[in-house]
Amino acid sequence: MKRASGLTIWLTGLSSAGKSTLASAIAEQLCAQGLKAEVLDGDAIRQHLCRDLGFSKRDRDENIFRIGIVAELLTKHGVIVLVAAVSPYRSARDDVRKRIGRFVEVYVNSPLEICERRDMHGIYRRGRAGEIANVTGLDDPYEPPLRPEVECRTDRETPDESKAKIMSVVERWLGAETSPASGTLQVIDVIADAP
Amino acid sequence: MKRASGLTIWLTGLSSAGKSTLASAIAEQLCAQGLKAEVLDGDAIRQHLCRDLGFSKRDRDENIFRIGIVAELLTKHGVIVLVAAVSPYRSARDDVRKRIGRFVEVYVNSPLEICERRDMHGIYRRGRAGEIANVTGLDDPYEPPLRPEVECRTDRETPDESKAKIMSVVERWLGAETSPASGTLQVIDVIADAP
Repeated sequence: MKRASGLTIWLTGLSSAGKSTLASAIAEQLCAQGLKAEVLDGDAIRQHLCRDLGFSKRDRDENIFRIGIVAELLTKHGVIVLVAAVSPYRSARDDVRKRIGRFVEVYVNSPLEICERRDMHGIYRRGRAGEIANVTGLDDPYEPPLRPEVECRTDRETPDESKAKIMSVVERWLGAETSPASGTLQVIDVIADAP
Repeated sequence: MKRASGLTIWLTGLSSAGKSTLASAIAEQLCAQGLKAEVLDGDAIRQHLCRDLGFSKRDRDENIFRIGIVAELLTKHGVIVLVAAVSPYRSARDDVRKRIGRFVEVYVNSPLEICERRDMHGIYRRGRAGEIANVTGLDDPYEPPLRPEVECRTDRETPDESKAKIMSVVERWLGAETSPASGTLQVIDVIADAP
């Protein structure tokens, strides 16, 4: 039986590291399993819920704060929320972790030079050309997670490998709630093992 | 069988008209029925998701826009969302109705003099004293709904009467999805009857 326990899977990393791609792939898999999943994509959210915000530290913190509130509400109601947002500041991520509780932090790690080569949104090009400021990795800091539940090296792993790493942690969270009654000890073990 | 179909119940009206009280009472009843319900209270939301906003028309519209986004997400995932917000502008309410689709507008109607006598948050007193501006009903307009699904006259009805009026409309929305299979015709009739 699938219990409706939500979870927030928070993907952080540089622009073009692969956060949105991974988030969508995982959401698709979870939906195929009959679970409720929602992607909160940082770029999309800056078009509506955070359309007033820029890229100063203050605005970035506010952006993460708002995404955190929405993720918390959805998580509370049994949705598996996939947040794909650069979220460069550790303290802002730690704050949402505390707020939400059921939280898995995924560090989508790819070296700047690889991200810059991909440059899905032209951000690095425009940053290098001086057209925009506050580009994370160029003139704005990125604070990597110290103890992420998962680290995906998207420059070395295939998308499927990264996805599998995330799914194995997610399944540990959900497994305790969804596994068939094949033995109480097993279920307890999974609960104890969940981060 | 209870299907997880969400709905947004949007309570609009002057401050101290009784929106939050009704929203909480209905959420409690829905939860007791095993349904997922969430109250999005305008005053609470101005403490977090909309803490940057004031009471100009522009800020009020932005406030309703953001609440609408959250309500839409929760509704999509099967939650019955009770929004309690003054939401004085018709166009902003109509926009969220269009956005969400599954939407019941409740006009919580009480004459200004009654609301002012209650003055739960001291807003009217401070408005009359010139301490604050943009108080809806005093120096800011309130545009009543033209075709609300429910109108509660909280100055004449008891809270239970108002609640019952809202619940009967909510049950028409949910009834088509939750009623036992006691005849297809009945179910179709309920669907056709839903506003």
